[in-house]
Amino acid sequence: MADADPPTGSSAPGILTIDLAAIVDNYLFLAAKAAPAECAGVVKADAYGLGAAKVAPALHRAGCRTFFVALLDEGRALRALLPEATIYTLGGLQGTDPRAFVDAKLRPVLISLDEIDAWLAAAGSSASAGLHLDTGMARLGMPAEEFETLVADRERLARFKPGLVMSHLACAETPAHPLNQKQLTRFREAFAKLPQTKGAMCSLAASSGVFLGTEYGFDLVRPGAALYGIAPLAEQPNPMRQVLRLQAKILQVRCVDAGSTAGYGATHRFAKSARLATIGVGYADGFLRAFSNRGAAYLDGRRLPIVGRVSMDLTILDISELPEGAVRPGMLVDLIGPHNPLDAVAAEAGTIGYEILTNLGRRYARRYLDAGRAEPR
Amino acid sequence: MADADPPTGSSAPGILTIDLAAIVDNYLFLAAKAAPAECAGVVKADAYGLGAAKVAPALHRAGCRTFFVALLDEGRALRALLPEATIYTLGGLQGTDPRAFVDAKLRPVLISLDEIDAWLAAAGSSASAGLHLDTGMARLGMPAEEFETLVADRERLARFKPGLVMSHLACAETPAHPLNQKQLTRFREAFAKLPQTKGAMCSLAASSGVFLGTEYGFDLVRPGAALYGIAPLAEQPNPMRQVLRLQAKILQVRCVDAGSTAGYGATHRFAKSARLATIGVGYADGFLRAFSNRGAAYLDGRRLPIVGRVSMDLTILDISELPEGAVRPGMLVDLIGPHNPLDAVAAEAGTIGYEILTNLGRRYARRYLDAGRAEPR
Repeated sequence: MADADPPTGSSAPGILTIDLAAIVDNYLFLAAKAAPAECAGVVKADAYGLGAAKVAPALHRAGCRTFFVALLDEGRALRALLPEATIYTLGGLQGTDPRAFVDAKLRPVLISLDEIDAWLAAAGSSASAGLHLDTGMARLGMPAEEFETLVADRERLARFKPGLVMSHLACAETPAHPLNQKQLTRFREAFAKLPQTKGAMCSLAASSGVFLGTEYGFDLVRPGAALYGIAPLAEQPNPMRQVLRLQAKILQVRCVDAGSTAGYGATHRFAKSARLATIGVGYADGFLRAFSNRGAAYLDGRRLPIVGRVSMDLTILDISELPEGAVRPGMLVDLIGPHNPLDAVAAEAGTIGYEILTNLGRRYARRYLDAGRAEPR
Repeated sequence: MADADPPTGSSAPGILTIDLAAIVDNYLFLAAKAAPAECAGVVKADAYGLGAAKVAPALHRAGCRTFFVALLDEGRALRALLPEATIYTLGGLQGTDPRAFVDAKLRPVLISLDEIDAWLAAAGSSASAGLHLDTGMARLGMPAEEFETLVADRERLARFKPGLVMSHLACAETPAHPLNQKQLTRFREAFAKLPQTKGAMCSLAASSGVFLGTEYGFDLVRPGAALYGIAPLAEQPNPMRQVLRLQAKILQVRCVDAGSTAGYGATHRFAKSARLATIGVGYADGFLRAFSNRGAAYLDGRRLPIVGRVSMDLTILDISELPEGAVRPGMLVDLIGPHNPLDAVAAEAGTIGYEILTNLGRRYARRYLDAGRAEPR
């Protein structure tokens, strides 16, 4: 990833560099791993905060033909970018008029008998939709007892022909978790009960599921997180390329005396004199307040610990380890970068990379590194 | 606050209702409390996530004439809304061309000798700027030793005539904290060393400082958080009106058996059978993952605990306490509302109301309750 220059003429508190080529590489890696299953791209929540308007077309150019979003509105925005792609919306009908999905050529993934009936009534039996079966996540998708009602109702089943039957794994990042095998078995058993599966794609695996073995792959895998550089498996080396660099601009450098304190609530006290740098990034930029007294930035490979509480627009770094004069206002430090990859940063705040990504604020300058060299499969 | 109807035709995961009349009431309350000091309005970070384009004009109509933002870009956007207001930017020059501030009639609050020199060189000595003195926060503002250099340099001082001299309290929400008195004393002593204070406003107090006593008020107070309903003092009754209601739409209702689990990582296990509702709000909507297994929603005054992990677009509620059939897809539950005010909600995630506000996501439908009845002071 190329070094970014500080933005000039802009008051952006930092630079968000998003490597589209790395996303495409990750896609191609996952697609090869999942083959012969098709590999979709999950771009909900604005492509996990990285910008669906840039990410989705790059994936499409790399050969991705099926996309998943959460909401109707996200699907509409994606349809405008990709007129020919297959687009599923994961959140069900969301209480909206089903015809809105038909109008935008979107395929809602239905979650209940009520939604199937609403869909059939409004869109008819020829329109394409998906069906989400809950196999143990207890979050979204048709519960087992509703599914039994569905398969017992031949009349309704004759009219409802899902283009996709899917479920979602709760513990896929931990391959040894017993729930994985349970969900796999339940999914297989459910799928076998559906009389018409001709033409229906079958899908269970998201990012982590791609790494659980070929029996989890079925017809279609649905990676999101791994596309964006998040490790698919817990406590194992991350095979994905890093996608994101987040650099923050230093606004001020100062010295403080031993015994003084820093930040709101004076939660950090300096045992000896120190040098500090204040960056113009805070929790209003999605840099979680949970990084208070825990996280760090990096400059020239050196770790610069966050001292005191992260505040709304500002965060204080201890730069005492760097030579005097080495840090000046206007310089950039890495909040996420080569020395502090996304997952490691997230862990410092007690969360996961997904949340760091989807919280990335709007005040940063955004730069996209070109994915132009990627060839279609 | 009026009940909100579910949004129709939109797939918004919930409704954010922002009571502009409550913000104006809070402003008038703070202004009366701070009098004879002038009361400014802090609208940085898009008015703490509530929408500066709506909030700032409402405050202006209520008599507010001085505004604070963090960044040049925020100041420019505010200037377009309020051609005549006094607008300070708190983040210093941010490495930008100082003439950009002059062009937008913005007053940067300068934080260092270097910034003063850059300002004088680019904008001249007649342009208005502020000066931020650090008195113990160690975050932003001129450190004491730089300030001594400034006051010893009569030539530079003759050219630099700040329109505002300010500092910021680190522990104001805790009135008994010894740092408050220290910062007050340092600020007074520093201000006394500046030879030309004619025409300069003097400002120390933000929201909490307004409640520390009249000696903290000086010429201008700068509340932000309290305008938006956040309690100004820790562990004391909150005198501010609540501004925000956040309602989430229920997507699905289900039953689960005893012994089953919910959500990613299967972190919640049901000791007995339960009924669950899934809402279409997750951490991509700024509803922090820290609410996993800790937070709750409210419906009809009943607390509905979050079970399992909050995921990107979805959160699971245990609705077993409500009568069967009482909860249906499409209904709205309060994530922030009359029974769960902002500060209490924030505490459940181990954070403060400020972070909840500034993280509010972009997928919600936003409704502003009119402030039309508010009269200018």
